[in-house]
Amino acid sequence: MIRVGILGYGNLGRGIEAAITQNPDMELRGVFTRRDPASVTIRTAGVPVLHADRLPEMTEEIDVLVLCGGSATDLPQQTPDYAKYFHVVDSFDTHARIPEHFAKVDAAAKEGKKTAVISVGWDPGMFSLNRLYANAILPEGKDYTFWGKGVSQGHSDAIRRIEGVKNAKQYTIPVESALESVRNGENPTLTTRQKHTRECFVVPQEGADLARIESEIKNMPNYFSDYDTTVHFITEEELERDHSGIPHGGFVLRSGATGMNREHKHLIEYRLKLDSNPEFTAAVITAYVRAAYRMGQEGMTGCKTVFDIPPAYLCRQSGEELRKNLL
Amino acid sequence: MIRVGILGYGNLGRGIEAAITQNPDMELRGVFTRRDPASVTIRTAGVPVLHADRLPEMTEEIDVLVLCGGSATDLPQQTPDYAKYFHVVDSFDTHARIPEHFAKVDAAAKEGKKTAVISVGWDPGMFSLNRLYANAILPEGKDYTFWGKGVSQGHSDAIRRIEGVKNAKQYTIPVESALESVRNGENPTLTTRQKHTRECFVVPQEGADLARIESEIKNMPNYFSDYDTTVHFITEEELERDHSGIPHGGFVLRSGATGMNREHKHLIEYRLKLDSNPEFTAAVITAYVRAAYRMGQEGMTGCKTVFDIPPAYLCRQSGEELRKNLL
Repeated sequence: MIRVGILGYGNLGRGIEAAITQNPDMELRGVFTRRDPASVTIRTAGVPVLHADRLPEMTEEIDVLVLCGGSATDLPQQTPDYAKYFHVVDSFDTHARIPEHFAKVDAAAKEGKKTAVISVGWDPGMFSLNRLYANAILPEGKDYTFWGKGVSQGHSDAIRRIEGVKNAKQYTIPVESALESVRNGENPTLTTRQKHTRECFVVPQEGADLARIESEIKNMPNYFSDYDTTVHFITEEELERDHSGIPHGGFVLRSGATGMNREHKHLIEYRLKLDSNPEFTAAVITAYVRAAYRMGQEGMTGCKTVFDIPPAYLCRQSGEELRKNLL
Repeated sequence: MIRVGILGYGNLGRGIEAAITQNPDMELRGVFTRRDPASVTIRTAGVPVLHADRLPEMTEEIDVLVLCGGSATDLPQQTPDYAKYFHVVDSFDTHARIPEHFAKVDAAAKEGKKTAVISVGWDPGMFSLNRLYANAILPEGKDYTFWGKGVSQGHSDAIRRIEGVKNAKQYTIPVESALESVRNGENPTLTTRQKHTRECFVVPQEGADLARIESEIKNMPNYFSDYDTTVHFITEEELERDHSGIPHGGFVLRSGATGMNREHKHLIEYRLKLDSNPEFTAAVITAYVRAAYRMGQEGMTGCKTVFDIPPAYLCRQSGEELRKNLL
């Protein structure tokens, strides 16, 4: 059994807890929090909730610690800190800071002779893997990534900061005609506006100026002004009823050519359609918990990404079973 | 530079030759054939065509040998034979015999301290990888594979064996409504007939009984009787003009659920749309030539499949570049 710990019990931590119930070779041994542990109720019977400060004394109890904090301030600190004590997996997704994060985590994991896997999830994660495979296969070609249909937390938050807005949810939606053009091998050059539209469901405060809110949203730089944006005003009840989920997904495509004269076109497409963004991210992370554990057992220590991990390490089955059933 | 040899100069061997021109860290050092080398003209200037018998004396000239023979009789012999002398990659695709092939190649490669990668291409190959990743992420779910639209060589050959048929080409086509049902998370149980249709373009001999030919095709056991089949009679010129390509492709999907009560559905879809089946297969193999070479350099000898190979080994770029550009 792989003994797993979770640090941070938000949406992602809850997703890890659920994913462990689908992996019979893993058991949850503890949920760790920086809040008062008595204030956190988890759903797995018999598993303790402990303060994060207790972690350094748990090295005999836990094989792999999953770090479920945010990329802005939590993970840059936590992943290097805990990679000295445990095999760890995180979902660090601040792209520009990955080299720096990798270097720190690598040093810590090597010091502790542990295996650390960073930036796991679907983007970065499965989308990255698909970009890599497709680029390796078709060295001459063009990459496209579309996101959605899905909820963007950042854009929803930006709307909620507008005066007169009580609540809001924003969906990023890929433009179907752009997708089709890529699929048809037309290798289009697409502007921001041509790739995605944005749809906003906004609950206004009583008496708020709806025209002003709509205009502020549509003209917000970076977030909305480069997109075709639709704004719907709805009630809090409608928001709760129709928009309480956290769906997401997207498409990674590579269009390329082969042949002595590049006369044959090919399209590689990877698509995700997810009812729950955090639960799917957690499902990916949980598969990499197994990989971190195994690589650790084999002494492959230091920092790894999805690019470095043999796919078979993600699976419970033996090499023999995998070749028989999935090859 | 990775020095590559090709054994067998059919469609696949020609595809490898073309793919090498897209990979600047590789050079073609020889094409080997069991035919009279003087009868084989290749398209790369300055590269010798030699008899296959010369291979054992070429161990200092070639790093990786790509075996481009058939799975029925060539590869079961050739891959173990040559894995003693070179790092090798093959596209062995007789599913039921993979365990046996793996064992023989593994023994030979270990004896020669070489790295052998078997069953590379898109199915087995990229489709297998996608099945594995999707199963690891969503342990509870259902797999679907659809092939096409594409030319089935086996089915085309079967039609050509019918009396009165001069030439023929058969396309396997996925049923769009079945695909949509899977994408909608309906988890359908699909019969053979519900998954694919078959479309045949047949050039009859002069005066042949068309009704009999059509009936023989549609009622042919295993090949056609379980499918909805359409038969078009056309001229040799039309066949040449409209059906001379070797397109193929398909879809690998996994539909699964997460959450404490499996309340959230997810769909993972991987799609290939290929103008040239052999050239795309060759492009995949060529990426794995690099992996075989690198693993060989690092002493990771024996038989491997796509499941065993860290994705980064397929790429020319360093780990640092990959993390920066593709993660």
